[in-house]
Amino acid sequence: MAEVRANKKVVLKDFITGFPKESDMEIVTTDTVRLKVPEGSKAVLLKNMYLSCDPYTLWRMRKHDEPPSVPGSVITGFGVGKVVDSRHPDFKVGDFVWGMTGWEEYSLITETEMLFKIRYTDVPLSYYTGLLGMAGFTAYIGFHEISSPKKGEFVFVSAASGAVGQLVGQLAKLMGCYVVGSAGSDEKVNLLKNKFGFDEAFNYKKEPDLSAALKRLFPEGIDIYFENVGGPMLDAVLINMRTHGRIAGCGMISQYNLEKPEGVHNSLYLVTKRIRMEGFLFSDFFHKYHQFEEIIGEYIKDGKITYVEDKAEGLENAPAALLGLFGGRNVGKQLVVISHE
Amino acid sequence: MAEVRANKKVVLKDFITGFPKESDMEIVTTDTVRLKVPEGSKAVLLKNMYLSCDPYTLWRMRKHDEPPSVPGSVITGFGVGKVVDSRHPDFKVGDFVWGMTGWEEYSLITETEMLFKIRYTDVPLSYYTGLLGMAGFTAYIGFHEISSPKKGEFVFVSAASGAVGQLVGQLAKLMGCYVVGSAGSDEKVNLLKNKFGFDEAFNYKKEPDLSAALKRLFPEGIDIYFENVGGPMLDAVLINMRTHGRIAGCGMISQYNLEKPEGVHNSLYLVTKRIRMEGFLFSDFFHKYHQFEEIIGEYIKDGKITYVEDKAEGLENAPAALLGLFGGRNVGKQLVVISHE
Repeated sequence: MAEVRANKKVVLKDFITGFPKESDMEIVTTDTVRLKVPEGSKAVLLKNMYLSCDPYTLWRMRKHDEPPSVPGSVITGFGVGKVVDSRHPDFKVGDFVWGMTGWEEYSLITETEMLFKIRYTDVPLSYYTGLLGMAGFTAYIGFHEISSPKKGEFVFVSAASGAVGQLVGQLAKLMGCYVVGSAGSDEKVNLLKNKFGFDEAFNYKKEPDLSAALKRLFPEGIDIYFENVGGPMLDAVLINMRTHGRIAGCGMISQYNLEKPEGVHNSLYLVTKRIRMEGFLFSDFFHKYHQFEEIIGEYIKDGKITYVEDKAEGLENAPAALLGLFGGRNVGKQLVVISHE
Repeated sequence: MAEVRANKKVVLKDFITGFPKESDMEIVTTDTVRLKVPEGSKAVLLKNMYLSCDPYTLWRMRKHDEPPSVPGSVITGFGVGKVVDSRHPDFKVGDFVWGMTGWEEYSLITETEMLFKIRYTDVPLSYYTGLLGMAGFTAYIGFHEISSPKKGEFVFVSAASGAVGQLVGQLAKLMGCYVVGSAGSDEKVNLLKNKFGFDEAFNYKKEPDLSAALKRLFPEGIDIYFENVGGPMLDAVLINMRTHGRIAGCGMISQYNLEKPEGVHNSLYLVTKRIRMEGFLFSDFFHKYHQFEEIIGEYIKDGKITYVEDKAEGLENAPAALLGLFGGRNVGKQLVVISHE
């Protein structure tokens, strides 16, 4: 007879509309889980350790044609866990994995296409919620596959102290680019300049004229813009882009919660400056994941990449941690610790 | 002693600001020209035959860092002419050429990088102001080099009856795509469907909801948008694009004369649908011109490509013809005839 455990979880109460609230989610503690994968399935049972808080997690909680998270069910998102039981040939008991899981103590994963065995266990495993997981992979793909970077180019990263932005800036520096980041507090600006090695950084909340700020920091213009925020920043960037510049469209966090998105008025520059703007999603590039993991894993071990995490403890604090992303409350990668082993 | 001729011309009075007016230009008839290229130069003297009216011509009349047309001087733009005298090894007397010239009867061309010898003299030479010139080349590059088209894809072309749009639609049909065009009158819509072979076409002025119109004509969404207009049409297209769609940014004629461009509110779809939007300019692709001329020249001779021109007679009518572009007055490629030989 398999062991049965209580399974605390965060459940979506109703699809998020407008600005998300903590009351859109609730903590449920009545559920139980059997610590065995049912016979006849190829599922994997995880003990969840770390959960990743991403704008993408919230995006999954909004109504879509095929909604990834549905009301009454556990919230889903990226996380790190340990295999407790498995009937899948690629995963065995004791393996550490990262991928799509539930916001709960134990998850039975039946769709394993989005589950990856962790190969670098000598770095903090929580890094796989960010630097070595979806956010880091997103940074890597967006910079190396989408932005066509060249040594010496001028690179601008918005939301630069976030999980993705941190790595984009460091990858650009490793390639010999000039890199400027924007963030929403002086503390974050300080991190960008003094910890992540950005050439320059600025607090966008203190700049009355974003275009003038970019002109000051990029007197010759911007070759590559790594777009995380959208809205007025995108407009200011378009004014300051160089001919044949590239914009990697990773996200537009300033726009997700608006009833009507703000207008972008300078799209004509896409034509006159022959700019390529391209949206992308990490999941179109899973075939490059192993290459990425190896390159970044070695960079971490060699001390060439720095990383800052912001950890919330316990599932009870998960909703607040997730919503904090939109207030810019977190410093560095926001994650939730459920268990350290 | 070389012959001297009167040289009627259209002169820019002052840089265009806001909506262009006929009074921004004036016809000057006092000037004279000597029908010999000065010794020691490598110039070419043209007798101009046909002038091309393009949004690009007007763009050249606005103030830029390095303004292509300047007040007090003849307006410059694309045209077709006959070589009257030449000290350039690539051009000899009697050659027909197309390229950057002046809005005048005779032009001394000292910068010949933008001058091309016409190789297909058995098609109407006026075609080199459009179909075989800048507009056609723009259509070819934007479709084949920028849009990554595949057989069976769903293609939408705005300003489809214009010089560029006509050819984009026909190239897409030749590739086996489903093609819809928009235009601003029922007469143009009729041309698109019954002359240029578009699968469908609509009059955007009669559609209260552009997004609904596109949804009706593209129930499965748009793979390729050939963007000529910008503004609300771009917003409506973004809603209807398919994942991994491409937008070739050729122009945004609806925005050129506005004090403040209209906002594009749906740029977030560039990210969520992983769309690539890329501006381009024909002049970055001159190395492909001969290939283009041969392909389209043969298509014309084989009757595979149809073309409609709207001809204004005489330099006196050139300013009105140029401004008519923005009222959508022209049907087909707008050009000005100065001389037929």
